[in-house]
Amino acid sequence: MEIVRTVHEMQTYSDEVRAQGSITGLVPTMGYLHEGHLSLVRRAREDADIVIVSIFVNPTQFGPGEDLSTYPRDFESDVHLLEKENADVIFNPAVSGMYPEPSLTNVYVHKLTQGLCGADRPGHFEGVALVVAKLLNIVKPHKAFFGAKDFQQQAVIRRMVTDLNFDVEIVTCPVVRERDGLAMSSRNMYLTSDERERAAVLNQSLEEAERLIKEGERSVDAILNRMRTMIQSKNPVKIDYVSAVDPDTLEPVTGIRGPVLLAVAVRFGKARLVDNRLVEP
Amino acid sequence: MEIVRTVHEMQTYSDEVRAQGSITGLVPTMGYLHEGHLSLVRRAREDADIVIVSIFVNPTQFGPGEDLSTYPRDFESDVHLLEKENADVIFNPAVSGMYPEPSLTNVYVHKLTQGLCGADRPGHFEGVALVVAKLLNIVKPHKAFFGAKDFQQQAVIRRMVTDLNFDVEIVTCPVVRERDGLAMSSRNMYLTSDERERAAVLNQSLEEAERLIKEGERSVDAILNRMRTMIQSKNPVKIDYVSAVDPDTLEPVTGIRGPVLLAVAVRFGKARLVDNRLVEP
Repeated sequence: MEIVRTVHEMQTYSDEVRAQGSITGLVPTMGYLHEGHLSLVRRAREDADIVIVSIFVNPTQFGPGEDLSTYPRDFESDVHLLEKENADVIFNPAVSGMYPEPSLTNVYVHKLTQGLCGADRPGHFEGVALVVAKLLNIVKPHKAFFGAKDFQQQAVIRRMVTDLNFDVEIVTCPVVRERDGLAMSSRNMYLTSDERERAAVLNQSLEEAERLIKEGERSVDAILNRMRTMIQSKNPVKIDYVSAVDPDTLEPVTGIRGPVLLAVAVRFGKARLVDNRLVEP
Repeated sequence: MEIVRTVHEMQTYSDEVRAQGSITGLVPTMGYLHEGHLSLVRRAREDADIVIVSIFVNPTQFGPGEDLSTYPRDFESDVHLLEKENADVIFNPAVSGMYPEPSLTNVYVHKLTQGLCGADRPGHFEGVALVVAKLLNIVKPHKAFFGAKDFQQQAVIRRMVTDLNFDVEIVTCPVVRERDGLAMSSRNMYLTSDERERAAVLNQSLEEAERLIKEGERSVDAILNRMRTMIQSKNPVKIDYVSAVDPDTLEPVTGIRGPVLLAVAVRFGKARLVDNRLVEP
């Protein structure tokens, strides 16, 4: 496994392997890898000849007051895990390599970034779109792999890729969960053991919502109220949102008429946790 | 010479020639080719193995009330001219191929787009950045060639390419002029013969400014006033701007201390004409 640290070296490597006819797959991460990330790497290992995992804690997607400085890092462990998964390359650039000067260029995806996490984290998806555009131009993958836990993120990236004609296939992989259903996230490490137990309610509320819909409930208010009540009973610091949205437009639905994305963002302790579930009535 | 009309066909072609080790050069145009464009094609012919000329009148860079519907087109003549220059490919997509739906993604380059033409043509450079980002992802050239007549455009594109890590070299080629010094432009065809004669004052005012600077004039006001007086004497419909800016930041300079870009935008008849000159004191 190679560790590549500069943009130029990465672009040269990618040109070479592409010229040899290899199919390349990119798994963009911020490191501190867990089973969720590794599921993406395994999928990439199946779908591509060359698997490139980027590890870069991207400053431009953190807002002021967010957890950039405390975001967990463990490069040595990441290397070890990726070796076991037979990844080919870790792309691990310095911040000064990715942003030699502050970017004057913004990539803004309208509409899809307005609701859900976009409302609570202004500028977040601009930072995500910017760094993913950069990574796609640096790594030039045939395929890029994202987790469904960050459903809005993959929707924003898909749209950017379509609109800007990036020649890459975006593959979205299922949420990977702990035994009690909590979606895996690097931010789970912020939780105390008590918070960690209570946080399982996110997935439980999504399962309950699915059950209600499958049983015929068609009132969005009834479903969201039930979810909110369940979550509230576990005393979170704050519920950022509990929403039912159209999975394509991410706009709130007023009734259950087709597939619906149920999505939650809740703060337990120092962690802001997100989860979601796509439900077909 | 091949004519390619779809995004997919163009991407496939580019992957193939790149895999064969060919260096590819893109000359992006809106067609109605003149010697200015052809100078870019000739430079590309020197610098690249495969020369791809895109011909696409990009609707997103025209504002309401601008000349999108009347913009001159002559595809047959363009093909003929490009055959003579030994271009390899014309990429000539349909609007519906480039924009199957309106783009939700905006590419916005701050600061550089605020002054000069950016002030008079709101949204213009967003449209330019968007279509160039798309073309770079569709044609995947090693090099792309732009004319210095649209100095602000090439500055915006250079910055976008740097910020988003597009793996392409931007080559800026000198302004090509008519015998009387008028910068070549597809929009010159809007001019009546009388307007055409008077329009030569743009370049004359730039030459006069250079002469003043070379003779030691250091007052920006004195230089710009002299240029304005010269242009005004030819009764234009409107002077959009006569400016002296830093060639890197495009911000107005307050004195002549180093290289300065003198830039003008003036309306004669139905044509909005731009020109510029980089002067070293």
